[in-house]
Order: sequence, then structure tokens, then C-alpha cells
Amino acid sequence: MTSVIESASNEKIKVASKLSVSSKERKEKNSFLLEGLRLCRDAAECGVSVRTFFYTQNAFEKHEADVRFISSKAENTFLISKAAALKLSDTQTPQGFFCVCACLPARDEESILKSGKFIALENLQDPSNLGAVARTAEALGITALITESGCDIYNPKAQRAAMGSLLRLPVIRTDDLCALIGKCRARGFKTYATTPSDSAKLITEADMSGSVIAVIGNEGNGVSQRIFDSCESVTIPMKGRAESLNASVAAALVMWELMKG
Amino acid sequence: MTSVIESASNEKIKVASKLSVSSKERKEKNSFLLEGLRLCRDAAECGVSVRTFFYTQNAFEKHEADVRFISSKAENTFLISKAAALKLSDTQTPQGFFCVCACLPARDEESILKSGKFIALENLQDPSNLGAVARTAEALGITALITESGCDIYNPKAQRAAMGSLLRLPVIRTDDLCALIGKCRARGFKTYATTPSDSAKLITEADMSGSVIAVIGNEGNGVSQRIFDSCESVTIPMKGRAESLNASVAAALVMWELMKG
Repeated sequence: MTSVIESASNEKIKVASKLSVSSKERKEKNSFLLEGLRLCRDAAECGVSVRTFFYTQNAFEKHEADVRFISSKAENTFLISKAAALKLSDTQTPQGFFCVCACLPARDEESILKSGKFIALENLQDPSNLGAVARTAEALGITALITESGCDIYNPKAQRAAMGSLLRLPVIRTDDLCALIGKCRARGFKTYATTPSDSAKLITEADMSGSVIAVIGNEGNGVSQRIFDSCESVTIPMKGRAESLNASVAAALVMWELMKG
Repeated sequence: MTSVIESASNEKIKVASKLSVSSKERKEKNSFLLEGLRLCRDAAECGVSVRTFFYTQNAFEKHEADVRFISSKAENTFLISKAAALKLSDTQTPQGFFCVCACLPARDEESILKSGKFIALENLQDPSNLGAVARTAEALGITALITESGCDIYNPKAQRAAMGSLLRLPVIRTDDLCALIGKCRARGFKTYATTPSDSAKLITEADMSGSVIAVIGNEGNGVSQRIFDSCESVTIPMKGRAESLNASVAAALVMWELMKG
């Protein structure tokens, strides 16, 4: 039988709510909060460890089969009041589906980095950009996403923009992208760093065959010098007055060319 | 001398504030509100008719030259209080720059549609997607953006995501995209409609030479049947489990291929 939580100040609700706003809290608890029918079902389907599933009466009435399915995969399930749902939600009209999940187990970097096509994000700040890149990467068939610093993949905005991709796509989080790039170059990878500078090689003329890592830089400052030093610079030719492309669009064009190689 | 507005319930502030939330109000008043240093300066620079410029003392202290420049292009200028700025702003920490601008004059459809590369958006719902498409379109050198129904280009979220592109890029707003496409086909344009269906021709194999219109559909429902009937279907090959690409990313990849033709 499902337990019921009425109060928005219930301890379990408070703890879950903190996970959605604090990256520090997510790290300490090694867990994160997902919201929405689609993301909760995605998590249950792809084997993410669901510690707690919260749903509302309204969610049950509209999507009983989904509630039963997610509940069958969760360690604990609670029926919660509308007030508690509002406390957990990012939106004003929550769907009434929330999962506290364990952070994904670390990937085996060595086996993933044997070969393939990789997109690396250096210090990306906007979680929506991170999520959008993951969604595109999965759709285009990128091997794995590599991130160094910047926003974390468990940020609710990143998860929402990713539409489940961040639960499925392999993500390698590194503290030293330079070292990772150096290691891959030694294995014969081609490594590219993107820049708006038009003196760089056109992305359409770069050799994308074999194993490749392409680096997209921070929204404001681009790729850092230490990364440029260990990569070949490539650029997306631009014609208009717009100073630059949005990071997730630049990443999409780079991945598109990458997957042609 | 600049007049001063202290109260957030001042009539001019109320009228301007309505423009940011209501598309109906924008249509009735034939004007729209821009927020932020960059957008206000872009408007003043590219000849948009600035009816009223509002700035805060803080904005003046930080960016005096910009305040003077925008003010020199505006019909009226008001120094406003922080409270009034908060009333006008979309954000909690406004930069203190706001312009009420006249909606852009209608473009000469006939001369623009003579030749070139066009992206058409059918009933796009998310203003951030619309803005992102415009930003990419300008950067890649697209001739003009064509829109039918959906969100309007004066929506503040669209303007923000466009980073000024919607003030510069020619936009043709049509009530009948089918008729427009028919007319262009008669002139020898190639017309493509994008679909996730993998039975369609790959976007990389479509002939993008000469004049081309490519249609991106609504986020939920894609391109409508009536448009498919007057276009050749093209698709972006996908490999992963992600059901589809974000509309602004799909548009970016299509425009990228378009500009190679």
C-alpha cells in the first residue's frame, strides 16, 4: 500500500525539493530529482535507480498505467497532495510525477574512450544548453558527451531540455580535459576546438574520419587557451551580423559534421 | 532635459509593461517592448523607430555613453526608478534599459522572394525557438525568415533569444504559407518540408542549389499535410533513441545544408 504525504513541509518533500535547487545537495546526497511523466518514465525504463517516487491523485487518475509502472521500479512510493507537488515543482501546474534518483554510476572511461565520436563541453554555464546538446548528441548518434566543470547534468533544467537523453547517453565528467585530450591524441584521435575566429580551418574541411573529439567552449569566453594548445582550431563559417551562434546550435552543427566522417 | 518617472504605476510604465505580456496589445498599439542594453542598442543602431526609451540611474552610471546614444535616437526619454524598472522587467535584476519601439515596417515580399535561401516556420509555438532560429539564420546568411501563425516575433522571449537578429533579418509574415510556397515553386524555387519519417529523402541528398524554401513544422505536430502536399519531404537522419530534435536545432541543421547549396 502506498503511503500518503499531505504536508508540503513533510521532511521527505523538503529533502527532495532541495535536490532540485542545490548542486551541492545533489553531490552530498548522491541523488537528484526528476519531474514530469516523461522523465520519470524514462528513468524507470532505462534502469536508473529510483529511490523515491512521488505522484499526485490527479497523476494517478490521468496516467494510472504509468504510475504503476514507475512505482514497480521504485524503492519507495508516496501519494502526495497538490500542495506538496507544488513545493517540489519547477512549474505552476505540475503533472504530479517526481522521482528522486541515485546519481548515475560513473562510466568506464577507459572502455568508452577507445574509439568513437565525442563532443566535449568546457565549462558550459547554461543547463538548458547542456541538456539541448545531450538531446542532439543522442539523436545524431554521438558516442559520449564529455564535460569539464560548468553546470551539472542533474540540474533540473538540463534534464528537462535533454528529454531523457542525459539518462541514456554516456557522459564522462573530467576534472582535466587537457589530460583526457592528450591521452586520446596519443591513441590517434583527432581533436578539434571550435572558435569564432575565421582564420581557423572551416569545420567542413576538417578530417572527421576515425575517432574524434570536438570541444565546444563556455558561452561567454569560448574554448580556453590551454585546450586550444592541444587541439586543432576549427570554425563554423558565419556570414551575418550575429556575433556568434548559441552554444547548443554550434554544438549541433559540429556534431552533424562529426557524424559525417 | 530628461523627465523622471518614480512610480511603478505611472501610466507610461503600465502601457509599456502590457506590451511585454500581451501579443494582442502589441498588435493594437503597433509597438513592442525591448529590454536590456544590448537589444536597446541594437534597435537604436539598426534604425528601428524607438518611441520611448526608459533607463535607470544605475544604467546611466554604468553605461553613460550607451544611454546617450539610445536617447539620441528615441522620440522620448525617461529616467525611471528601480521600482518602475522592476515593473517593466522580465528579470529580478534588470539592467535598466527599456525601449518601446514601433513594430517593424512590413517587408516588400515581392522583392525579397525573388531569389535566395529561406527558412519557413509553420506555427512555431515556443518564442525561444523562434528567436534561436532567427539568430542562427542571420549568422548563417539566410535571405529571410518566413513565419505562418504561432508566436510573434515581438514576444520578449523571442527577442531575447534572437540577440538582435529579429531586428535585422528580413521576416515575412504570411497568413497562407501554402500560397506563398506555390508562388515560389512557379518561379522555380525548390521547396522542402522536414519530417522525422525515415522514408523521406535525406537532407544531405536534397538539391539545395538555386532558390530554396525549407519548412520547419510545429514543435508538437510537425509540418501540416497541406504543406507536405506542396513540398518535397526531407529528413535529418537520426540514430539514437531521442524521438526528435529540438525545432531550433532541426532548423539549424537544415539551414546549414541549405547554405552549402
